[in-house]
Amino acid sequence: MGDRLTIALDAMGGDRAPEIVLRGADIARERYPDVRFLIFGDEAAITPLLAALPRLRDRSEVRHTSDRITSDTKPSAALRTGRTSSMWLAVEAVRDGLAGSVVSAGNTGALMAVSKFVLRTPKGVDRPAIAGMLPTSRGECAMLDLGANVECDTENLVQFAVMGALFSKVVLGIERPTVGLLNVGAEELKGNETLRGAAARLRADDLPMDFKGFIEGNDIPAGTVDVVVTDGFTGNVALKTAEGTAQLCAGFLKESFKSSLLAMAGYLLARGALRKLRGRLDPRRYNGAVFLGLNGIVVKSHGGSDDFGFGNAVCVAIDMQRNGFMEGMRSEMERLYGGSGPQAAVAG
Amino acid sequence: MGDRLTIALDAMGGDRAPEIVLRGADIARERYPDVRFLIFGDEAAITPLLAALPRLRDRSEVRHTSDRITSDTKPSAALRTGRTSSMWLAVEAVRDGLAGSVVSAGNTGALMAVSKFVLRTPKGVDRPAIAGMLPTSRGECAMLDLGANVECDTENLVQFAVMGALFSKVVLGIERPTVGLLNVGAEELKGNETLRGAAARLRADDLPMDFKGFIEGNDIPAGTVDVVVTDGFTGNVALKTAEGTAQLCAGFLKESFKSSLLAMAGYLLARGALRKLRGRLDPRRYNGAVFLGLNGIVVKSHGGSDDFGFGNAVCVAIDMQRNGFMEGMRSEMERLYGGSGPQAAVAG
Repeated sequence: MGDRLTIALDAMGGDRAPEIVLRGADIARERYPDVRFLIFGDEAAITPLLAALPRLRDRSEVRHTSDRITSDTKPSAALRTGRTSSMWLAVEAVRDGLAGSVVSAGNTGALMAVSKFVLRTPKGVDRPAIAGMLPTSRGECAMLDLGANVECDTENLVQFAVMGALFSKVVLGIERPTVGLLNVGAEELKGNETLRGAAARLRADDLPMDFKGFIEGNDIPAGTVDVVVTDGFTGNVALKTAEGTAQLCAGFLKESFKSSLLAMAGYLLARGALRKLRGRLDPRRYNGAVFLGLNGIVVKSHGGSDDFGFGNAVCVAIDMQRNGFMEGMRSEMERLYGGSGPQAAVAG
Repeated sequence: MGDRLTIALDAMGGDRAPEIVLRGADIARERYPDVRFLIFGDEAAITPLLAALPRLRDRSEVRHTSDRITSDTKPSAALRTGRTSSMWLAVEAVRDGLAGSVVSAGNTGALMAVSKFVLRTPKGVDRPAIAGMLPTSRGECAMLDLGANVECDTENLVQFAVMGALFSKVVLGIERPTVGLLNVGAEELKGNETLRGAAARLRADDLPMDFKGFIEGNDIPAGTVDVVVTDGFTGNVALKTAEGTAQLCAGFLKESFKSSLLAMAGYLLARGALRKLRGRLDPRRYNGAVFLGLNGIVVKSHGGSDDFGFGNAVCVAIDMQRNGFMEGMRSEMERLYGGSGPQAAVAG
């Protein structure tokens, strides 16, 4: 698998690339001084920025390409015409063992298409999923799928649960994560057949998790489980609804503090504590959605993230590499499906 | 349809029935002095409570039954054994024209099953949906389905859009409500075939709404549209995720104010404004989920609601009656499907 602590960076993805990418990588380097970077993108734009970040420059190698996948490139177009783009080359570096993971702030659909095409899924995984972290009243939880698969079958959900539990173990350090299947009620008979089938499988199999059965939408922010498993449609809606609601509350709070002189004075006194509150809900802390279920670690930073957020996405990639996510996933899938992958089970 | 301003009440539904039901009805009576109530339940429990609410007593008639449907009664059991329960009799009062609407804080599944059985759906409606109100940064929006139908087809979603628009018009007074279909992206090609089919229908038909196409989870709290249309699975998850996230933010805020003496002093100064903020997000304000698509108006109050919340649910029922929801729905369905309902179109 090549150098385990080399990260491939798509320097040209995201709203303010390559500046944010390099500054973010430098923040991650401070936290993990032994990491190295393989940077793909426009050398003419990258070199002067690296000159201002000498410590990052000393741990980086730049591979020039003038091609890039833009934010409005369709996945199909990325596959047809993107082979010499910074994103594609960075993903290829993982396939070729030059790097242990890749981080990009580029277009999500294109990154998923390119990653699936270049890296493929390992034995036992039918489809990759997008996982992310959310704040909860008890800390944080992982949720997947956040949008890669609009429709999922029972086997997909079982695989998501296994990969999500491993992700939670590797990134959050939880030995035996609790896992819940998102549904419209906690009773065993709720939901559709796909969900009931997945719950039956997860209850029966001896899997490396503490399966808690069905959970509901309010259990996500309540932190009832460490890992929330759902299809990509529901996961995407739940994530965006949670983000939007947190923004709504913040907006209402701001208006309240502006509504009277007394309230403004109160704000001035409490602002230190309120700044900490903002920090707890800061979306940059939760930046770094991970594509699970590929032959390699792919982390997607939000396209509008700043250097702090991008640095967090790089740290997620580093944690997954250092803590052996790939090796763990392969051995869990081997355990789950034995000699034959689920494809074989379905085909045969 | 009988007396338009008589409301049938299931006095025995909810955690603190019949007290909350009667006190809530009295709050609604203050706002709408010309309303009358037909109260179903245990006379021995109701009469002494009414004695303390003389103005409500003067506008109420009590129909005794000692049977009730409990919070853990399964819908199938409610249909088999609930025919003399307070819930069933209250719904029957609407069918028989004795009341224009029914309000219950009882078990949602049982209330939906009984309402469907007793009231049936009007021509043009395949399945009833549950609609509710949510706070947004621009005021409030209606969302449906909140959980009656785990899976929906294209025609269900089109009908939900029409009924939701009418509900928004009648309850919020919006002449031409904006309507959005909840999806994982705003582009026309996103989502599954059911959603794309519904969007095509809603774009093509000349319907009494301003159809805005697809919206995403964050558009719900942002108030992008007046009416959010989705299947019952997604709607239930989105609603509960939003409620849970608002609670999470409130909890974090509380902790912040307790974290230092300065912050506590700030809280004391700002508490008037913060109380108003709590009011804006108060779930009691949004109490009263409505079953749309039945031959009669059925409003479900939260089982744990207090009298203020139950009173709001009664006011929703009154608004729908006064503003002609039933007449509007029948004429819209006639316009949408002409002589034949969608059942006929499918069957033929």
